[in-house]
Amino acid sequence: MLKIAVLGCGRIGRMHAENIARHPRAELAGVYDVFEPAAAELAEKLGANRFASAEAVFASDAVDAVLIATSTPTHSDFIEQAVAARKPVLCEKPIDLSLARVEACAKAIAGTDVPIMLGFVRRFDAGHRALRDAVRAGRIGTLHQVAITSRDPDLAPESYIAESGGIFRDMTIHDFDMARFVLDEDITEVTAMGSRFVAPEMMAKYDDYDTITVTLKTASGKQAVITNSRRAVYGYDQRVEAFGDAGMALSDNCRLNNMQLSAADYTGQGAALQNFFIDRYDAAFAAEIDAFVDAVENGQRPEVGFEDGRQALLLAEAAVLSVAEGRTVHTSELG
Amino acid sequence: MLKIAVLGCGRIGRMHAENIARHPRAELAGVYDVFEPAAAELAEKLGANRFASAEAVFASDAVDAVLIATSTPTHSDFIEQAVAARKPVLCEKPIDLSLARVEACAKAIAGTDVPIMLGFVRRFDAGHRALRDAVRAGRIGTLHQVAITSRDPDLAPESYIAESGGIFRDMTIHDFDMARFVLDEDITEVTAMGSRFVAPEMMAKYDDYDTITVTLKTASGKQAVITNSRRAVYGYDQRVEAFGDAGMALSDNCRLNNMQLSAADYTGQGAALQNFFIDRYDAAFAAEIDAFVDAVENGQRPEVGFEDGRQALLLAEAAVLSVAEGRTVHTSELG
Amino acid sequence: MLKIAVLGCGRIGRMHAENIARHPRAELAGVYDVFEPAAAELAEKLGANRFASAEAVFASDAVDAVLIATSTPTHSDFIEQAVAARKPVLCEKPIDLSLARVEACAKAIAGTDVPIMLGFVRRFDAGHRALRDAVRAGRIGTLHQVAITSRDPDLAPESYIAESGGIFRDMTIHDFDMARFVLDEDITEVTAMGSRFVAPEMMAKYDDYDTITVTLKTASGKQAVITNSRRAVYGYDQRVEAFGDAGMALSDNCRLNNMQLSAADYTGQGAALQNFFIDRYDAAFAAEIDAFVDAVENGQRPEVGFEDGRQALLLAEAAVLSVAEGRTVHTSELG
Amino acid sequence: MLKIAVLGCGRIGRMHAENIARHPRAELAGVYDVFEPAAAELAEKLGANRFASAEAVFASDAVDAVLIATSTPTHSDFIEQAVAARKPVLCEKPIDLSLARVEACAKAIAGTDVPIMLGFVRRFDAGHRALRDAVRAGRIGTLHQVAITSRDPDLAPESYIAESGGIFRDMTIHDFDMARFVLDEDITEVTAMGSRFVAPEMMAKYDDYDTITVTLKTASGKQAVITNSRRAVYGYDQRVEAFGDAGMALSDNCRLNNMQLSAADYTGQGAALQNFFIDRYDAAFAAEIDAFVDAVENGQRPEVGFEDGRQALLLAEAAVLSVAEGRTVHTSELG
Repeated sequence: MLKIAVLGCGRIGRMHAENIARHPRAELAGVYDVFEPAAAELAEKLGANRFASAEAVFASDAVDAVLIATSTPTHSDFIEQAVAARKPVLCEKPIDLSLARVEACAKAIAGTDVPIMLGFVRRFDAGHRALRDAVRAGRIGTLHQVAITSRDPDLAPESYIAESGGIFRDMTIHDFDMARFVLDEDITEVTAMGSRFVAPEMMAKYDDYDTITVTLKTASGKQAVITNSRRAVYGYDQRVEAFGDAGMALSDNCRLNNMQLSAADYTGQGAALQNFFIDRYDAAFAAEIDAFVDAVENGQRPEVGFEDGRQALLLAEAAVLSVAEGRTVHTSELG
Repeated sequence: MLKIAVLGCGRIGRMHAENIARHPRAELAGVYDVFEPAAAELAEKLGANRFASAEAVFASDAVDAVLIATSTPTHSDFIEQAVAARKPVLCEKPIDLSLARVEACAKAIAGTDVPIMLGFVRRFDAGHRALRDAVRAGRIGTLHQVAITSRDPDLAPESYIAESGGIFRDMTIHDFDMARFVLDEDITEVTAMGSRFVAPEMMAKYDDYDTITVTLKTASGKQAVITNSRRAVYGYDQRVEAFGDAGMALSDNCRLNNMQLSAADYTGQGAALQNFFIDRYDAAFAAEIDAFVDAVENGQRPEVGFEDGRQALLLAEAAVLSVAEGRTVHTSELG
Repeated sequence: MLKIAVLGCGRIGRMHAENIARHPRAELAGVYDVFEPAAAELAEKLGANRFASAEAVFASDAVDAVLIATSTPTHSDFIEQAVAARKPVLCEKPIDLSLARVEACAKAIAGTDVPIMLGFVRRFDAGHRALRDAVRAGRIGTLHQVAITSRDPDLAPESYIAESGGIFRDMTIHDFDMARFVLDEDITEVTAMGSRFVAPEMMAKYDDYDTITVTLKTASGKQAVITNSRRAVYGYDQRVEAFGDAGMALSDNCRLNNMQLSAADYTGQGAALQNFFIDRYDAAFAAEIDAFVDAVENGQRPEVGFEDGRQALLLAEAAVLSVAEGRTVHTSELG
Repeated sequence: MLKIAVLGCGRIGRMHAENIARHPRAELAGVYDVFEPAAAELAEKLGANRFASAEAVFASDAVDAVLIATSTPTHSDFIEQAVAARKPVLCEKPIDLSLARVEACAKAIAGTDVPIMLGFVRRFDAGHRALRDAVRAGRIGTLHQVAITSRDPDLAPESYIAESGGIFRDMTIHDFDMARFVLDEDITEVTAMGSRFVAPEMMAKYDDYDTITVTLKTASGKQAVITNSRRAVYGYDQRVEAFGDAGMALSDNCRLNNMQLSAADYTGQGAALQNFFIDRYDAAFAAEIDAFVDAVENGQRPEVGFEDGRQALLLAEAAVLSVAEGRTVHTSELG
């Protein structure tokens, strides 16, 4: 049994803690949150130990590995501390909002063999993964184009927007990773456009956008397009399409149920989409824990690691620059 | 060019006449209707000859073949006259509402080599035919079960109901033929139930039903179920499913267009179904003419012939008897 | 917290035990199985108490309610004992294979106010329930016809077939309950046909069928048709359709994932269906436990009770008789 | 009856001629082709007059209107001659490959009240039009994003590629018009990327691309993305999606038939897509003729006119420039 401690007891931390508790080859070694009542409540609910500090977690012999679900600015520090304590780590995205901080972290942990996994949960969705597997297996031949549609069901609260680092770093970052997951080749060019439709004033206040389109190109000419919106009234719209010279694959949305109505004016009206990532990616979060446990047990590098986190952030930086300067940005410009 | 005359210039006759006029290897030899103005209007519209009588059609050297789209009670007489005149014939279903009359007609034309084709147009629908072809090609292995759903968009006028011979002879007869088309084996048992929901008083007046379910069984145990309603508010519901030991095939409905809407309460709401047979089976009617021309040109027995018309009517008779006596009827009881 | 003991530690009992352990307002009071190692293994895995006998379960003050997942012949006895011990009971279907035993059980527990719930899990499937709710809410107007397609992914082992009571009592019984759930009106007529395609010799040996079609009718004329097969190679086929004078509702199948492939010969090829009830009805089993906890907490009669179990079995009896005698059976004949 | 002459008797001209002949309020006034045998064959087939020259068409009192389906370089000349002869004109796209020639033509016909309609046939597709109508009717609220996927089933012959003016002018031009049709607002920014995957050598030879992505932006910030490929093995992929603050609309592909197969490895495998524009837009071409007849009969400006042709070409020019210079092009740069 792999004993995993959870740092951060917010909504995502709680979900991870439950998935760990339920996993057949893992157990919850304890929880920690800077806000003690949150940790206490979760510890009691799951019958788990509560740690008094992050340091106590990293120092504990009862902890084999850590899951970091704290606020973004702490991620890099905790990754460094985990590596120093030789505890394998599964860290929620992003590593940091600052590429400089990410690079410093990379330097601090350079050469370590401690497994570090980034929480790009969408890679573990059954549909998206089946698409990627179909691409890898040659079912659509040579890949030419990828289209990713990703729209949140509703605008996040202003407190979140204010700290998020902007849509490219908080939302599109998942799609940058998905594009990399499917393209399986370095992205060399980024062109982005942003508009303000959902909350024009709030977006202007934070120099942010709520509606974006990004196009990507790889060295070999593969193309990808990402469309995002901070609000889709019909629910959490999550689709990936891959087109190649032998076919096309589509990972489509998930509805609340499979019932369809036909009436005098219409046919086949389906239920609303599963609404929000906790529901839509419920099984994916469990599969992510499973992949982490597997990697640690087998002493293998996790499928999605620190460098993936760094690359996704670098693409976000490129997108920010592209919008600011109204031009295509070459990723080589950013190092 | 095969010169085909059309007898009967109602809605179906007009459509057939246009399809003949448009066919690359056929031409419209002329039209006839007992109601002269109908024939005159159609003749003028299509620049075609108008025959003064059915006899004139059968006697004309300018007529290679005939299409019978007159009222049901004339079908058998015209088939007999066409055979006597050695004109290949494509006759709208049913041959007659009376099985006795059909048997008499069969006797009268016994042994003829004049091609006789029955207008079971659904056999020529691209989806239904693809299903049948998939079954024949072994794509679903050995066939076990067939399910046919067939619902009209709206109740026919009382004048039609009064003369129709009842739902099994006017509506289900298409589904009996479809069941035979897909099952490809003699049906030995028929069990039917009828209800009155759409127009209870009208149905009671004519001892008819508007909502029926029929189950069929073949000698080898293959099963089929047919469900009919005289009114589906969402349109002309036309589906066929075939299940076998290696798979399942479904011929699904056709919508007015392929646009789908998602909004705050729903996703994927599609357009209404194509509404009514002239639209739904538009291409099938053209393909039917094509099959007739092919058969006559090649001197081959049409794929769907007199015996198919007789068998479908026999199943309708069995269904009527089954409802009346509340029991399974063996087709052997009816000869 | 409602303390629920589980009797029977086979596959279904284990799943129920896990769902109880995970339920926020329930806890697993302990487990029992006549085969001690099964109970011991499950008790250890879930950190639960192991009872030495069923009697010990019913006598325990630490047990608020019981879930019966033992072999069918014990169901009635345990229901009677649970009622005598005033423990609310959630019992897997069927109550018994013998209608006489069910009637005796009904007499033994007559008048009790102890909540008794039957495990017709499909009522708790999100799609099927949404369909039923749409029907109740009048979304399709007055209900006219119901079609239920239910096919197992593969033949059960001979040991199961030998004891199952036949397809109508072991498999169709779920569909009889689903028909009752959707029709919401007493069924008065049953007509069934059976064929042997999947395993002809095994079916003949046990006087059973593997491929059946059943039609049902209510007093007001509502119609339902059920089609079953003991093996569908494409997976666990579970569909319900309801047709009314204002529309139609379809609860469709669930695939393993939402990825679709298009290639040179085809488009939109989807994944296989979720394969078997533990997967397909995973969320429904959890919702069933939730409904049981709710009913007991609120002192309410469970939504699906003993009488529902009795009625489903009665319809199975009628189907057996219908096939044997080749006629429609009126449920009034069976009392 | 509106007497329409057809100039150009290639594949598209023939189809238009047949649609005119079939139209209830139009008749085929005659045909002309610079290659006389083509005109003679079509004239004979449809029983129509053959004109000896384009001048004869424009001079004829028996011609009310003209349809131009000749080679692209003749379009502008014929439009000018039609206007001079006061014959309403329906001209196949594009007006010309050179924006300068289009501007000259615009000047030449400036101020005319002769109806000029451009053959952007996709506007008349039932699904695409239903989408546009839904957008106009506010069914998806304020429009934010449009996604157009358009892939040919196979590479055109080299002779076509050599003369086509490049993918943006020959293929994407339809999508530029579709974007304008749905956006209903001036497009101000164009960013394009091109790759060579389908026929790298041929594309390099003609400085062309076979795989492109274009993003568009309007003054108000609406975004559109177009993806094209010169070859999709699964058929003619034609989809349009519109996203707004109250919903989403998708105009999906059309399959050859509505039959779906499920087998041991998959479910719901559909037929190939309708393959190529003559099939896919068959009904749209007929609706286009209908719209032209309507406009001429009612003395109204056609819904899609010369300026639409000019704008689409201008967007193609912008895309060419964007690829060449690797930057976003503002349409204001092109005048």
